[in-house]
Amino acid sequence: ETESWSFLDTVESNFRPLVVIELAKGTKEETIEWFTKRIVDKKANGGAQLLIKPLVTENGVENIYLVGASHLRLLLGAETVGLVKECNDNSMRTFTYSSRKTFKDFADDNHNFLTMAECQYIIKHELENLRAKNEKMIPGYPQAKLYPGKSIVRRLLTSGILLQIFPLHDREELKKLRHSWYGRVKVGYQPLDDIRCYFGETIALYFGFLEYFTFALIPMAVIGIPYYVFAWEDYDKYVMFATFNLLWSTVILEVWKRICAILTYRWGTLLMKRQFEEPRPGFHGVLGINPVTGREEPVYSSIKRQLRIYLVSLPFVCLCLYFSLYVMMIYFDLEQWALDYHEENESNFSSLMLYVPSIIYAVVIEIMNRIYRYAAEFLTSWENHRLESSYQNHLILKVLVFNFLNCFASLFYIAFVLFDMKLLRQSLATLLITSQILNQFAESLLPYWLQKRYNRRMKQRMCSQKTDTDLSLAEQVNMEKEMGTYLGTFDDYLELFLQFGYVSLFSCVYPLAAVFAVLNNITEMYSDALKMCRVYKRPFAEPTANIGVWQLAFETMSVISVVTNCILIGMSPQVDALFPDSKMDLVLTVALVEHLLLAIKFIMAFVIPDKPRDIQMKLAKLEFESLEALKQQ
Amino acid sequence: ETESWSFLDTVESNFRPLVVIELAKGTKEETIEWFTKRIVDKKANGGAQLLIKPLVTENGVENIYLVGASHLRLLLGAETVGLVKECNDNSMRTFTYSSRKTFKDFADDNHNFLTMAECQYIIKHELENLRAKNEKMIPGYPQAKLYPGKSIVRRLLTSGILLQIFPLHDREELKKLRHSWYGRVKVGYQPLDDIRCYFGETIALYFGFLEYFTFALIPMAVIGIPYYVFAWEDYDKYVMFATFNLLWSTVILEVWKRICAILTYRWGTLLMKRQFEEPRPGFHGVLGINPVTGREEPVYSSIKRQLRIYLVSLPFVCLCLYFSLYVMMIYFDLEQWALDYHEENESNFSSLMLYVPSIIYAVVIEIMNRIYRYAAEFLTSWENHRLESSYQNHLILKVLVFNFLNCFASLFYIAFVLFDMKLLRQSLATLLITSQILNQFAESLLPYWLQKRYNRRMKQRMCSQKTDTDLSLAEQVNMEKEMGTYLGTFDDYLELFLQFGYVSLFSCVYPLAAVFAVLNNITEMYSDALKMCRVYKRPFAEPTANIGVWQLAFETMSVISVVTNCILIGMSPQVDALFPDSKMDLVLTVALVEHLLLAIKFIMAFVIPDKPRDIQMKLAKLEFESLEALKQQ
Repeated sequence: ETESWSFLDTVESNFRPLVVIELAKGTKEETIEWFTKRIVDKKANGGAQLLIKPLVTENGVENIYLVGASHLRLLLGAETVGLVKECNDNSMRTFTYSSRKTFKDFADDNHNFLTMAECQYIIKHELENLRAKNEKMIPGYPQAKLYPGKSIVRRLLTSGILLQIFPLHDREELKKLRHSWYGRVKVGYQPLDDIRCYFGETIALYFGFLEYFTFALIPMAVIGIPYYVFAWEDYDKYVMFATFNLLWSTVILEVWKRICAILTYRWGTLLMKRQFEEPRPGFHGVLGINPVTGREEPVYSSIKRQLRIYLVSLPFVCLCLYFSLYVMMIYFDLEQWALDYHEENESNFSSLMLYVPSIIYAVVIEIMNRIYRYAAEFLTSWENHRLESSYQNHLILKVLVFNFLNCFASLFYIAFVLFDMKLLRQSLATLLITSQILNQFAESLLPYWLQKRYNRRMKQRMCSQKTDTDLSLAEQVNMEKEMGTYLGTFDDYLELFLQFGYVSLFSCVYPLAAVFAVLNNITEMYSDALKMCRVYKRPFAEPTANIGVWQLAFETMSVISVVTNCILIGMSPQVDALFPDSKMDLVLTVALVEHLLLAIKFIMAFVIPDKPRDIQMKLAKLEFESLEALKQQ
Repeated sequence: ETESWSFLDTVESNFRPLVVIELAKGTKEETIEWFTKRIVDKKANGGAQLLIKPLVTENGVENIYLVGASHLRLLLGAETVGLVKECNDNSMRTFTYSSRKTFKDFADDNHNFLTMAECQYIIKHELENLRAKNEKMIPGYPQAKLYPGKSIVRRLLTSGILLQIFPLHDREELKKLRHSWYGRVKVGYQPLDDIRCYFGETIALYFGFLEYFTFALIPMAVIGIPYYVFAWEDYDKYVMFATFNLLWSTVILEVWKRICAILTYRWGTLLMKRQFEEPRPGFHGVLGINPVTGREEPVYSSIKRQLRIYLVSLPFVCLCLYFSLYVMMIYFDLEQWALDYHEENESNFSSLMLYVPSIIYAVVIEIMNRIYRYAAEFLTSWENHRLESSYQNHLILKVLVFNFLNCFASLFYIAFVLFDMKLLRQSLATLLITSQILNQFAESLLPYWLQKRYNRRMKQRMCSQKTDTDLSLAEQVNMEKEMGTYLGTFDDYLELFLQFGYVSLFSCVYPLAAVFAVLNNITEMYSDALKMCRVYKRPFAEPTANIGVWQLAFETMSVISVVTNCILIGMSPQVDALFPDSKMDLVLTVALVEHLLLAIKFIMAFVIPDKPRDIQMKLAKLEFESLEALKQQ
């Protein structure tokens, strides 16, 4: 295979720009020369063997470069990153250059065999794996130290020389995608495969989950409406509703795993081998030898990290939780004050005033969540995790615990300390609706409006009335580089997680929650789509095989909801009336039912296979083949 | 690598017998000729390329054959089965013939590089993978059908031509092992590495678990003794004991996973790749194409199997459970009768009579368990599972559910329906002690005595007064082939599982249970060792990386024990006295504590890593190396 590298031509006639590199203004010439040389240099010399061109605008050359690669280079890169594609016999296999002819739609002149998102992912991977050889520092910047094996791009980023790397939009493709995604009002599925081709698997999987989750909520919403409309207060009906809700929430989470397996098998990521994880960009420490790789890299003692986690982060999180509870108590004082006011001066205004504390509290919760988010990011970054995955897990854990308490503590307090079901229902409704409105506004509409205004001004400055697709490359790059950066699916999943909490934790008190969740999610799909296509820079595709830690988070929430719903039902006067003689029997029955439901839940989770049978068979077949191949050797 | 086969010599001067094959008396000459030819035939011709010799006794040639293999053949076989051995740099790697020089203790003339158990495992693997080529039937037996790819040995076994295949004992090694294992009375660890070398990983891991579990019980036993001696009835002390017990049981199960990882890493099985599973011997069906392998093999519809499971097995198991409960009710009638008798005629005899129903019930339980075991095996075999692992899982599930109910139903009934703590303690003690005595007797002492008597008679018949090590090969084979077959670790684990139930489920009522468990396990270690070395044929070594489904079973038991212990503590008069005003508060507090304990349990199980850090690092290093190797290709 080594010969094939020599076929590569670094100067190709049809250069297609895929990725944009923006360097800081005033970057030294020698640095630029060195960097571009390393990028185009042959793989054998430790280069990335990519193509690079400066962007020429009307104002001359700015420090913006376009990166592309020859078709052959991309195919070899696809092998390096371990892409999985469909073969002629409809099976999914890891792509290798030598077996390229066996893959579906492969032809030496078919430049669409790899999607643009895949090409951009390959280029990102190759750029990030461009490593220092013997350089001790970045030429021209003695303070930016390098050591053999250090990723050059990451050092350039951390020392501020490289401002950003982002993939270019494909205006034609984007227009088509927009049209099929949200261009027309329609009832139906999202074009997940198209989204995946354009934005990659992580984002497509989020939209897949959002869509699936919305569909899964519909039965609950449909059953919930009559409870609200006819104002059924019979708790035996609520018991049925809650029981249905519990089993349903278990089933939908299990079924999602299967759907996720189907999607990611089709997309090839289910089979993709995990790459060895390099240290995350922000990781620092004294230079040492990594015991696993034997390579020189920064080393940071695990004990120090543990100390930071347990002596600083943990107390801080506890303090924040305490503060959040304190704010909650203030809310209850306000609530009491509003009630008193309403009783003293009964009027339309005062009855409206009753809702004010809840609304204020909902706004305060949102603000606290956002501030805490920054603190959590800072702390987790300060903990200095070596791996991105470990950083993400610690961050998600911190944020989840706080957001959970912040959003639901008041509801728990109302339900299980004040025993005020009317207030619970009212608070739940206010919190749910306010947070949904705030989120939609802050996440999509506001950025969209800002972006639109900015674009208008940009176009005015450029004195052009062109539509998006007519823009020249230079104009397009200049417009896109100013767009915001999409920071990943974290916030989107978090929003769904909290929504799932509102819907499931107290479902038997406020069955209408599912209706609002469905309505919110339908607009969410559109506003998120808008956000991805219009507001943010195109993000790099990230292959993924599942929704990761969120699956666990949703499952934990559904376990907690079994407990809360059982207690709520047990507390209802109607169920109470069934046990006129002894409160004791009531409590024991509730506890028994709760344990039974939990047992059923775990057994169901255990019995339902995580992957559908045909996917299991396909995976077994691949495993068998690889074992056979090993035997043949 | 293919040339190396030609170095193999089928006739080697130093033939070492490893495995014995016993054919039925009167097996046709042509069959024997064909079978031995297939065994010695070159690998390239589809043979097993092993060595085989008929056993010559004083009475002439019987239908017993000794199988061995050349040193080179065994090394190549070790590569085929994927053995993992220690390298010169102390890392564990999959053995390959080409990299043999890098392995510790490897020398071309060192015939001890592979342990005898490993050699026997390799030969078993090669024999089982000796497959039919174009034969339509076994020569001489037209009714014993073959098809290309069918394992010849399995067909010979199922058609009764091949009576048994078993590995030979190594009298010298066995003597050494016996000496270090149970030859002298000593306090200390078992020689797990020696056991592993002689009997393989599955059995060594059982003894490792038994030893670990016994050590883990010692703190509970030590704490339990004063409770019994001083007859403490203060439930606040019991609360402490039970809480300690709960956390302890979680910790020991988590720590076991880590110890298991350490052991199996050292033994190489943690890294061993799972082989593709062939259909189990008893599997039958019409010939078809396996969708995974594309090979011809029996196919049996999964729907038919599901129908058999849900329409026959499930109702049968339920019926058995019902019957077991029925027997339990009879026991309570007996108990009542004995109590009445004791009250009417108070005497020493009558107070002894009080224990009789419990003892009878314990015996009946043991008998029912054993009968049910046969029924479960028959049913699971009839369900016609394709894979041995699936067969085992279904069998274990059936047996576990029944044994759990059979052993513990009466205790649950006494505790939570009769609320009779005195009777509970008495029943628990009787059940535990009786079942332990019965088990020790039925499992080890009885077979040992029978075996000893048989051996004596054999020796008398042979008119020799030789000790074991002086026996000729023919005498040794003749003696061993009559020994019982060890049927695997299932019964041994089941016994420990039930013991764990007795100790943990009602620990706060009868803290002395742990003491009895420890005492039993110490004698169990010796009697099991005796059983392995003296009573049974040597079993084939089975590589394994963990105790499999038993880990899950023990964890489930410890979850159930949290619930039962919390309820028992809540029911105690002392705790009751803490809540004089309201029973309600008591129940709610107990429920709260229970949920907290369960939450702590799950968090602990989640937080404690399954593998120690250094093993994790070693595994990461190997993974990194294989990824790097892949890149180099």
